[in-house]
Amino acid sequence: MKAITSRDNPLYKRLKALAGSTHQQRRSGHALLEGFHLASAYLDVAGQPETCLVTEGALRHDEAQTIVSRIDEHRIVTLPDALFGQLSNVVNGVGILLVVDKLAPALPERVAQTCVVLDGVQDAGNVGSILRSAAAAGIQQVFCAPGTAYAWSSKVLRSGMGAHFLLEIHEDVEPQTLIERLAVPVVITDSHGAEAIYDCDLSGPLAWVMGNEGAGVSQTWRDAVTLRVTIPQPGGMESLNVAAAAAVCLFEQCRQQRGTR
Amino acid sequence: MKAITSRDNPLYKRLKALAGSTHQQRRSGHALLEGFHLASAYLDVAGQPETCLVTEGALRHDEAQTIVSRIDEHRIVTLPDALFGQLSNVVNGVGILLVVDKLAPALPERVAQTCVVLDGVQDAGNVGSILRSAAAAGIQQVFCAPGTAYAWSSKVLRSGMGAHFLLEIHEDVEPQTLIERLAVPVVITDSHGAEAIYDCDLSGPLAWVMGNEGAGVSQTWRDAVTLRVTIPQPGGMESLNVAAAAAVCLFEQCRQQRGTR
Repeated sequence: MKAITSRDNPLYKRLKALAGSTHQQRRSGHALLEGFHLASAYLDVAGQPETCLVTEGALRHDEAQTIVSRIDEHRIVTLPDALFGQLSNVVNGVGILLVVDKLAPALPERVAQTCVVLDGVQDAGNVGSILRSAAAAGIQQVFCAPGTAYAWSSKVLRSGMGAHFLLEIHEDVEPQTLIERLAVPVVITDSHGAEAIYDCDLSGPLAWVMGNEGAGVSQTWRDAVTLRVTIPQPGGMESLNVAAAAAVCLFEQCRQQRGTR
Repeated sequence: MKAITSRDNPLYKRLKALAGSTHQQRRSGHALLEGFHLASAYLDVAGQPETCLVTEGALRHDEAQTIVSRIDEHRIVTLPDALFGQLSNVVNGVGILLVVDKLAPALPERVAQTCVVLDGVQDAGNVGSILRSAAAAGIQQVFCAPGTAYAWSSKVLRSGMGAHFLLEIHEDVEPQTLIERLAVPVVITDSHGAEAIYDCDLSGPLAWVMGNEGAGVSQTWRDAVTLRVTIPQPGGMESLNVAAAAAVCLFEQCRQQRGTR
């Protein structure tokens, strides 16, 4: 076990720069996993972290002890609350944080299951909510086109609530590359002139494409569409939040598939 | 038309303090409506704002002109881009902002329609998304218990996308007060031992109670529940984001009501 005691420690300075910049996390492919739930989910599926940061106070708690006991000693770094606080994105956190390489599975040659495509979804809260809904709906693969928020940022991780470890998340996937590998119909939601989602057959595998909050689905994906569905909205609004629309779509598919799996 | 030219202007100082503090907006019951869409929606339903702030650059655009032409001249204040920017919460905004009293309808004596109760939903993005889904689903009344995010904060307004002007939003409603006025069954989502939402009769009016992101629905509301429903989740997650769950619930109700209205 190492101890950081000064803010001038080189490792601390590197981690502080990383914690403060989602851009830098994305560029280096790192993620900061804070709290017991994300830390143990990571250890379950991915093995050892690069570094485990833990406050001296946290070490007194059983849950932190359980996590720390699973990690190679030379990867563990203790530090005072005040220094930890500057790395943390969580108010009243528990004082434990793993620095890890994000999970970056190889792009499959062929996609034949239901999957979700994030086509430039910008808001981290929306990305996290969609990942969570996808995992809850039993989906295994999510593909993020360039322009989508970094899926392993602290905010997406927090709102994903562990979904990251139930899914294969593929980032920076060029639309054309994925389209060539898709063996399932492409479906988008469209408020104009499409068929009501309840009247469409969603019982087979589908690639659900969710577009940017402002601009919607990009032209490349529009050109690849097999099925356009609409969520009938009796009120006067024009559209739903993208994460809300995704939840309605994925769970309408689950409803239609009930009893078939 | 007045012009603000200095950051020492007393009105500017007051507005800057207001813009920087959701707490202060809540306390004084103010809202800052930024952009063409929110401004014209407000003018349609509520009449004159307290103040309309507009940049000199924005005045050159037709859409801004249209809005400004609907507002009493003595309420209009022009200011330079740099000063406007410090009041704005929008990146690349259009340079128009209304300062208004939030809409605060009287609490109805009796609630006999489908409504949504936000029981301590904390995240502004979630509150905005639920308001947007509720308006899209044709719901008219939303009740926010103490502890819920301020519904008229800039972030909730932005994610609500105009839903505020299609709904009656009642804030700081004590659970017991509302429970006594409810003439419709109270429904909550519950992951343990409840009936699948698709098997429940949701075709009549219901009060949907959505709880806090961490703690869920409070005991007072739990004690008032008529119907507990669950959204079956084939994947391994324990629960959905509250705004995603709300969307699934409200649109499952819409699905069941199709053809009946």
